[in-house]
Amino acid sequence: MIDFHGSKVLITGGLGFIGSNLAYRLVELGAQVTLIDSLIPEYGGNLFNIHGLEHRVKVNFSDVRDQHSMNYLIQGQDVLFNLAGQTSHMDSMKDPQTDLEINCRAHLSILEACRLKNPNIRVVFASTRQIYGRPDYLPVNESHPLRPVDVNGINKMAGEWYHILYNNVYNIRSCALRLTNTYGPRMRIKDARQTFVGVWIRLLLEGTPFEVWGGEQLRDFTYIDDAVEALLMCASKEEAWGQVFNLGGEPAITLQDLAEMLIHVHGQGQYETKEFPAQRKKIDIGDYYSDYSLISTTLGWQPTTSLTEGLSRTMAFFREHLDKYL
Amino acid sequence: MIDFHGSKVLITGGLGFIGSNLAYRLVELGAQVTLIDSLIPEYGGNLFNIHGLEHRVKVNFSDVRDQHSMNYLIQGQDVLFNLAGQTSHMDSMKDPQTDLEINCRAHLSILEACRLKNPNIRVVFASTRQIYGRPDYLPVNESHPLRPVDVNGINKMAGEWYHILYNNVYNIRSCALRLTNTYGPRMRIKDARQTFVGVWIRLLLEGTPFEVWGGEQLRDFTYIDDAVEALLMCASKEEAWGQVFNLGGEPAITLQDLAEMLIHVHGQGQYETKEFPAQRKKIDIGDYYSDYSLISTTLGWQPTTSLTEGLSRTMAFFREHLDKYL
Repeated sequence: MIDFHGSKVLITGGLGFIGSNLAYRLVELGAQVTLIDSLIPEYGGNLFNIHGLEHRVKVNFSDVRDQHSMNYLIQGQDVLFNLAGQTSHMDSMKDPQTDLEINCRAHLSILEACRLKNPNIRVVFASTRQIYGRPDYLPVNESHPLRPVDVNGINKMAGEWYHILYNNVYNIRSCALRLTNTYGPRMRIKDARQTFVGVWIRLLLEGTPFEVWGGEQLRDFTYIDDAVEALLMCASKEEAWGQVFNLGGEPAITLQDLAEMLIHVHGQGQYETKEFPAQRKKIDIGDYYSDYSLISTTLGWQPTTSLTEGLSRTMAFFREHLDKYL
Repeated sequence: MIDFHGSKVLITGGLGFIGSNLAYRLVELGAQVTLIDSLIPEYGGNLFNIHGLEHRVKVNFSDVRDQHSMNYLIQGQDVLFNLAGQTSHMDSMKDPQTDLEINCRAHLSILEACRLKNPNIRVVFASTRQIYGRPDYLPVNESHPLRPVDVNGINKMAGEWYHILYNNVYNIRSCALRLTNTYGPRMRIKDARQTFVGVWIRLLLEGTPFEVWGGEQLRDFTYIDDAVEALLMCASKEEAWGQVFNLGGEPAITLQDLAEMLIHVHGQGQYETKEFPAQRKKIDIGDYYSDYSLISTTLGWQPTTSLTEGLSRTMAFFREHLDKYL
């Protein structure tokens, strides 16, 4: 792993869940960190996410769709963690053009800026397992066909490919991580726009029963610290360039068992099992969990935080700071 | 096959190579045809393409990026052949944002217009084998991974998926044809923006040696009348909805053999074999030919025009009308 000490690092979506957690770690490692975020209320950005870090990072409020500010900010950076994105599936169906602007057009601008202004930069892109769609087989490895089931998935797929293309054609060293359900402190819990787990946690802390849709679906989860470690490895190991890696986590667990585990960790709480709403059913993907052996063998990544430990730390964080996330 | 007699049919890219040939056939079948084209000089539109048909079709000059005119024109139509697109690989690398506007944003607008204004329409989308990238195996079937090697391929992949998504989620009956090298009368021959075969034909007719890059690569070809037949089948058979089909043609042939065949058909001519230019080499895909058994078994499509016959008709057309295509 390279030494991030003194490295200039830019993070788009830097006030969001993953961006802010990554920023804490990078500051620890001695990097000079700039965070870009536009704080769109429906997205994951939250100034409290960098509480205690305000004077150790630069925060630049701008939108990744703003080509001019991006052109400027990319110059002189050693690494770009390109994490900004529209993540809500329902929002992408209601307003597909905005999803396209953020998840496609902005990435093309950013990559063009890298090519023209800073071709020696290294870029790590946050992609998603959503682009696989409904799995043909489990666990899903990176060779699985891509069959996204919503506009967001299609656009994220294109965004991922732009990064790999710029690596292959222009030697802009880039790679992509297909994140599965990432959870932990600083995640969005106001609603289900980032992940359903967020809203479960909020309702649990508010003492309101939460809803489990279906319940039998298997899912896998990555604790935020493990995801951050994977991002750092991707930025610093040359074996990563041009590659696409799944993240994952053990064990795959049904939503119902996850609900039980969360209540157990919290010490109390209730949930109700509901039928899948009709509108969601059409884009339901059934069971999903990842084969993450490629990143294990290529970069040596392994998840190290167990699900109970991760949920316990997450609950502890939000128990203390709930009011900052409502 | 349904009767197109009296059907209202809209064709985007209607003055282009495939759109105009399709229009002739639809008029023969008694359809009421509207052609949309913006005649961008670098693209395939050419008013001479509908010579003799001017008074039997409606021509509407507008751009698929013009959401308002599209919203209006889609209303009341029975079938939309969505053929408009930016097709040049090099142009997509030079100006990725324009490629995105035409090959992604415009399709989202068109599909939203269908959903909101005309949900009973049937839509056939012209996709491309480019989205497969460099084949893992031959012949390439529809399960082959998609690994586009240029911005155009990435955007076309997204455009194709929007159509399938709107079929699956909103029941806007849509399907996509992944075209391989389509050739025939009315193709663009001014340059290689549509296909290299076009420029070969022009140089041959002008008595200038043409260049064959590499020469050993295998390719397959579909004569335009066979492609038109496939489009009509896709629009009229319900087995097509939600599907993606390869087109192809027999035999797969090396570029060098194709050059020889073209010269033989023309009765004279010369070519020079050149090394692949460095800029193209990075996006070279090696050999490619399709497995088109899915459309054969599902819709009963078979190519019926042999390569020599097709090339001979193509040369005859351009020998007569060369001046209209320079």
